[in-house]
Parts: sequence; structure tokens; C-alpha cells
Amino acid sequence: MAQVKITPRSDDYSRWYQDVIAYAELAEQAGVVKGCMVIRPHGFAIWEKIQADMDARFKATGHKNASFPMLIPMSFLEKEAEHVEGFAPELAIVTHAGGKELEEKYCIRPTSETIIGHFFSKWIDSYRDLPMLLNQWCNVMRWELRTRIFLRTSEFLWQEGHTAHATHEESKEEVHRMLQVYADFCKETMAMPVVCGTKSAHERFAGALDTLCIEAYMQDGKALQSGTSHDLGQNFGKAFDVMFQDQDGKRDYVWQTSWGTSTRLVGALIMAHSDDDGLVLPPKLAPIHVAIVPIYRKDEEKEAVVTEAKRIAEELRADGLTVEVDDREGIKPGAKYYEWERKGVPLRLEIGPRDLESKTVMSKLRVAELDERGRPQKVALPIEDIGVHVGRLLDEFQEFLYERALALREENTVSIDSWEEFVATFADGKSKFVYAHWDGTEATELAIKDATKATIRCVPLPGHGPAPEPGKCIKSGEPSAQRVLFARNY
Amino acid sequence: MAQVKITPRSDDYSRWYQDVIAYAELAEQAGVVKGCMVIRPHGFAIWEKIQADMDARFKATGHKNASFPMLIPMSFLEKEAEHVEGFAPELAIVTHAGGKELEEKYCIRPTSETIIGHFFSKWIDSYRDLPMLLNQWCNVMRWELRTRIFLRTSEFLWQEGHTAHATHEESKEEVHRMLQVYADFCKETMAMPVVCGTKSAHERFAGALDTLCIEAYMQDGKALQSGTSHDLGQNFGKAFDVMFQDQDGKRDYVWQTSWGTSTRLVGALIMAHSDDDGLVLPPKLAPIHVAIVPIYRKDEEKEAVVTEAKRIAEELRADGLTVEVDDREGIKPGAKYYEWERKGVPLRLEIGPRDLESKTVMSKLRVAELDERGRPQKVALPIEDIGVHVGRLLDEFQEFLYERALALREENTVSIDSWEEFVATFADGKSKFVYAHWDGTEATELAIKDATKATIRCVPLPGHGPAPEPGKCIKSGEPSAQRVLFARNY
Repeated sequence: MAQVKITPRSDDYSRWYQDVIAYAELAEQAGVVKGCMVIRPHGFAIWEKIQADMDARFKATGHKNASFPMLIPMSFLEKEAEHVEGFAPELAIVTHAGGKELEEKYCIRPTSETIIGHFFSKWIDSYRDLPMLLNQWCNVMRWELRTRIFLRTSEFLWQEGHTAHATHEESKEEVHRMLQVYADFCKETMAMPVVCGTKSAHERFAGALDTLCIEAYMQDGKALQSGTSHDLGQNFGKAFDVMFQDQDGKRDYVWQTSWGTSTRLVGALIMAHSDDDGLVLPPKLAPIHVAIVPIYRKDEEKEAVVTEAKRIAEELRADGLTVEVDDREGIKPGAKYYEWERKGVPLRLEIGPRDLESKTVMSKLRVAELDERGRPQKVALPIEDIGVHVGRLLDEFQEFLYERALALREENTVSIDSWEEFVATFADGKSKFVYAHWDGTEATELAIKDATKATIRCVPLPGHGPAPEPGKCIKSGEPSAQRVLFARNY
Repeated sequence: MAQVKITPRSDDYSRWYQDVIAYAELAEQAGVVKGCMVIRPHGFAIWEKIQADMDARFKATGHKNASFPMLIPMSFLEKEAEHVEGFAPELAIVTHAGGKELEEKYCIRPTSETIIGHFFSKWIDSYRDLPMLLNQWCNVMRWELRTRIFLRTSEFLWQEGHTAHATHEESKEEVHRMLQVYADFCKETMAMPVVCGTKSAHERFAGALDTLCIEAYMQDGKALQSGTSHDLGQNFGKAFDVMFQDQDGKRDYVWQTSWGTSTRLVGALIMAHSDDDGLVLPPKLAPIHVAIVPIYRKDEEKEAVVTEAKRIAEELRADGLTVEVDDREGIKPGAKYYEWERKGVPLRLEIGPRDLESKTVMSKLRVAELDERGRPQKVALPIEDIGVHVGRLLDEFQEFLYERALALREENTVSIDSWEEFVATFADGKSKFVYAHWDGTEATELAIKDATKATIRCVPLPGHGPAPEPGKCIKSGEPSAQRVLFARNY
């Protein structure tokens, strides 16, 4: 394969993002189905790893998976007034089926609070049935005008947790618990730090009392909402008559939550770590951990080198790693290097005749510091105990990516108290993570957005962002109890 | 929980099937969405195990997962004449989206040959791109008039493999390879024997040259088609212009296959193994392997017994088993036994004060022979090395279920040469697996179906069914080269 040129981030960040996806063969626009995408094997393998890791976290916190219909009667959506108002403009509607026009139209689920509320009302009768802790991995459809691959597509894959509880205290605990599960996943598995916070009323989920979120910092200074966790109060309980009898025989509506993350996380991963050479993946989500490239000039060298490469691959596979030995003919080592780099393989091993003699292999991490000659640092690893050395390098790389992403965010996080400085920070398409005071009104929120395109990403939870201190709203000058996080966003 | 009464199979097999599903809380009819079902956590956990096992088999044979849009432009279906004719009556159509009527209507995928054909044409250019071996786990929609939970629902979950090859020989190999993967899965994991064969032209997949299938024997004598593997020839290649250049520079259409299994397998599992006490599951697909019921009369006995039950559970979990300790208050042991039996837990352990003294636990497999007093056999297991004993019992139980299912099928498989006997065998709703001669014409096939409701399940592949020998058609008396499998079917 020929070496290809990925648009540098500094030239055009949006184009760079598309190039990274195209050259790593992660996904592509479906084209023939408006706003939808095809996730190709390399991209889907990343999503499978996200799913497996997250699913284990859901199960460890007591949740069980289930499957609900993808079609929802339109009358269901209308039972919760705010919910239908929020989702109606984005619905895809099934009007005909089995050769006939349907008496009641269905929408393809944009989210499943309504239909799950209906079944909760059938399954829940007593406090003994609570908490009910369900999750569903599925596809949903929201007809979007402007789409961007992985970040905003008409159809996307996601998980939606839906739980019912006996008290508001318990359901609020669940909302925070699952937000923390998301934050831990982002940090530990995606190597991506997030800010945890509460959405403003304007950005709240349609039908929720409160929406919590995790916001990730992308390399271009914008924020990406990477997961949300909603306190639904008794809104859907009342709409779908989900009642339970408590220990004293009193009947009340259940308190519900819902929480979700989606294939959007793959977009987050790309914009958190990748570079001008293409995709960069943390080892915990890499479909291929190690690419081994045998190096030889003469045919008589080939057999010994390839044999040893395959033996090392088997040794590493026994440790649970996925390893490719790239012994394709007719492609130069340099071209192979570029290809594996573009695909985000965390570690490359090169092995040639001299390495056989010295019983070492040359290793290069996907992101490496430059050596004294200005070339990416390579490190010789002893073949003996290669698994230990590779394991250590991958662990360090996972940690390195997190630290690098955190440092980048910290460098680009500022507290601002002057409106002029605020406007300048977001001028010409620029963005940072800006903590500033806000008077708490929707009018001011929208005025700031109109003037700067910066939105309130969240009101940080304790431990996130600067410690709360009273101040004056950056725009209106009215009193404010704490700074909130502003950024442009995807 | 109160003991519930499952309708005995001899009273009403269809009602029994529904009762087993309801009392094991596997799934239920959605009701509000026509023909669709909700898969509840216990049922979904079985499906997850089916998926995990089968997915590993697909990956071991070189296939990769991907994700394609759930909506397909109607014009795509029309590109393959037989395909659209076969599926048009069952389509659900999206006519409106984003608040507007769509210029081109979409259907919700009933299967994905067409849209995947479209992308194959973009991705395949040279013999070096072949074979392309993809699989997709997803939901599909076929608007069915008569539905039956798990067996035939409007929406169902499935996997669909789609592959493209350079020669017909290679694609035919793939068709057989994946049928064998299905047959191995059914035998090794579901403990369910299947007959492998070829469908008659009448039962073929719309758009295929040939459809291979696995047919499983259900306890009531009917057959359940449990998976299909299609030789698509160049039909979709031509419809979607999927061409490749071979090593000599010649361009030709690719040869494609597709193959699928679905949540219908959960129905097969139920009807292959379960009994009048409810669900019976092979250990390899059981969400819970072992239920431990602590037995005590006095409070002072309780702590020691429950503590030991939990210790044993931890020991078994360390071996990878899923174990429930049922220490619920206010429910008698007998009621607990019924509940775990209904849910299909393969092994129950009972532990009481006397067991602590003798350092044993009483064990009972879900299906056990009766002892001399006419009660289900229980076996005392030493607590020392409990994991070894439990592991052995579960392995034996997995094997036992397969042998039992095979024996039942063999008892009810006959070769018939007289039309009167054939008619009598299928009279009054009865069914067996009947091998009989057929003249190979659709007219005879339909005449037999009209007269008896028995259908040709398949023309057995070599090694399945009786060895080929020439004979005369059971209905027309015309010559026949081999017997084919007849049965009523789900």
C-alpha cells in the first residue's frame, strides 16, 4: 500500500478527523441512507472492546441486560409532554407494514424511556421488585440535519440503562453511581479524563429533572459530551403508571433513572489521542496490540526471521495480546510501518538477522519521543521474557496517553472573569475549557452562546473544576455561586 | 413465591411452551408493538451466551464483525428481482423522518444482502480484497401475520454472515463450512442434534442459488429450522455490480454467501430439552449454573449453614461458574427448589446442619432419575474438592442432554414407503421425522403439504439421514434418487 497523506491537524482539524477514520478504515458515511454510517471491522472491533469493558462494569453494579422493541407506538411518546416535544422533530416514522397502512404509527426508538416505562408498570408491583436495574445495548434513530461520523449520526449504537427505585434518594444515588462508572471507564480504559457535572436546564434531557454528564476535552479545545445520566424523578412513572406498594402498604410512583453512552465514544477516542500520522489507541481498546514486521534483504534470511517473528507472536498471544505478523511480500518495511501506525497499533516490533544474533528485537511505541538524531525513539528489547517487556511497555503507554491527555486539557483550561477575554478566547473558531461565572438564567446562557458559540457544558460536581466561590456573571454581572464550564462543543 | 402449575406437555404442547417461557421469565409478547417481544434478563442472558460462543466460532474461521444501517432504500431491494418478491410482503416502511415525508422510502432491514452488496462494490476491486468475510449481529424486521414468541416474531435479533469470494468453488466451501459451524454449535453448546441438508427450491432463500439448513427435532415431533447458509452465486454481485480483477487481469463478479441464526435458537433450546417442571438448560448456556439452598430450622443453625453455602459458592465461582445462594427469608426450601427448576438451573446443592457434620452437600441435577422411593435421585458430594465434583456433574449433564435429545429423535425417526402410513403419521396434528422418497417437483411437494401439513425440511447432506438409495415418490410414484426429510415444522 502506498503511503498516504493525512491532512495535518493544524491545516484543517475537521478534515484531519475524517482522514484518520478513512485511513484506519474505521467507518464511512453510508451515503445512500441519510446521516447513517457503516462501521467497518477495525472500527467495530474498538466498539466491541468498549462494550465488553463497560458491560462488565454494569454487571458488577448489579445491572442486567434485556431487549425491548425498536418500534414505539407514537401515542407512548405523547404521554410525557416534554419528552415528545424534545424528540418529535428527530423521529423516523413507520407508517406501513406488511403491505398495509398502519392504524397506529410507530417511531423507531430515539431512546426507550417510554416503552420501558410501559413494561415497568407490568413488572413492578411491590417494593420487593425494586430496585429494577436494566440495561439495553441496541441501535437508536434520531434524524439529524447535520451529521458527523461517530459524533452525530442518524442511527447510532448505544447502551441505555433504565432503573426504577423506591425513593428519590436511591434513584439519585444511582444517577451519580453510573456517572462515576462512565468517568472511571473513560479514565481507566479510554485513557481520557472527563469533567463530571450537571447540565443547565436548557441542555437537560427531555423529561428529566436533572441531567448529569461527562465532558471530555478534544485536542482542538472543544468539548465532547461523552455520556449522560438522568434523574427522571417520577415523570415517566406518572406517565406510564408505574406504581409500587411500599413496606407499609402505601402505593407510590417509582423513581427512575436512565443513562447512556454511544458509538460517539469512538469519535472521542480519536480526537483525544490521535495525531498527524493517524489513529492512536490506548492498548485496552486496541483491536491489535502488536504488529511484528520481519526485516530481511535476502531470501535465505527470510525463513529464520519470519519463523522467530511467528514464535514471538505466539508467545505474546499466550498472554492475551492480539498480534499481527506482517510478512506480506512486495511491501517495504517503511510502508508497513505507516500502515500499522495509521491503524493505531500501540506497539511495533521489528526483527531482522542482526536481532536474531543479538537476541533482541527493536520496539517502537505508536507515540515515541524523538532520539538525538530527530527520529522516533526505538528501544531494543531482549527476546527472553519478551512478554514481560511488551506487557510493561503497553501498560506504560496506556498510562502515558492518559497523562498526556490530562496535561493537554490542563494547559488549555482557564478561569476567566472578563467578558473581553472570554470573547477573545472563543474568537475565530477557537475554544478552550473556560471556567467562568454565570447568573443561572437561560437568557444569559443563550446570549453567551449567540455571542461566542460557547455553551455551558456543565456545572461541575464537587471535585471537578475550581472550588466553588461566589462571583459575578461574566455576561450580566449578576451574582453567581460558582463557576461553570464553558466551551465550544461537538 | 407460590408454586405454579405449568401446563403439562401432554395436555397442550403450545400452552406448555408459553408457560415455560412465562414462569422462567425469559420473554413476553410486547403486545403494544405488533408481533414483537421483550426479552427479559433471564432470556437475554441465554442469548448473550449463545452470541459469545458463536461469535468465537466465527472469529476462529476468519470472520470480522461490522455494522450496516438498519434502513435500506426501497430501490435497493428492487435490484434483485427474486429477493424483493420474497421480502416485499413482510416489510415495515419508513415514509417520514425529521418531520418531512421522505423522497425515497426506506424499509427496516429484513436481511442485509442488498445494502452490504452496495458496500462490497465500494470495497472490493481486486482478488487481493477477497475473500471478504463479514458478520453482523443486529435486529431485523419481518412483519409476520402469525407470531410465536422466540420462534417467529416481527422483530428478532440475529447474526447475518456475508462473504464474497473469487470463485464459486470457494463460496460453496464457505456455505458448507458455516453450516458445519452451526451444526457443531448446536451439538456442542446447545446439546441439540441437527440434520444438515439442502432446502427444496420452494423453500430456498429469495435470491439464492441454494439454501442449506440445519433442522432440529422438537419434543412434539415437529422440526425447527435453526439456521441457514445460502449460496448466493453471483446474483447480488450482478445486482450491485460487485466486480473484482483476478490475477490475470480479468474482471468478474464476486461469488457471495450469507448465513444466519437468530433468537429463534432460544425457542429451539426450550423445545429440545425442557419438561413439565419448566426450563431445562445445558450448562454451557445456563445463566446460573448452580443454586445453593441452605436448609435450617432454628436461627442458631442458620449462620453456620449460610456461611458455608457462601464459601462453597465462592469456591465454585473461582472455577468460572455462576452461583446463586438462595438465603431468602420466608420462603420454604421446596418453593425455592421449584423456582430454580423452572428457571432451568442445571444443578442444585442443598446444605443443612447434618451436611456440615458429614462434610457433604446433597446435589440434584435438573433432570434426575428417580430413586427406589420414587423421588428424584440426589447424590451426596464431599465438600472437599467440591469444584471437581460439580464440574464433573455439569459436564455429564451437558452430555446427557445431548444423548437424550438424540435418542428421542432417533426413536421418532422413520423411513416410510406407503402413502397411507405417511398420512397416518401426520394425522391429527402429529409429527415425526419421516424419510421418504420424493420426485423432486414442486407440485408434489405442495400436494403433500396440502394433504398432510408435512413439509420437506431438507434433502439430507451425505452422512445425514439414510444412505441414498433410489426409490419411488411416496405421493406420485415417480422415480426418486434419495429419501428426503419430511416433518411438520415451526
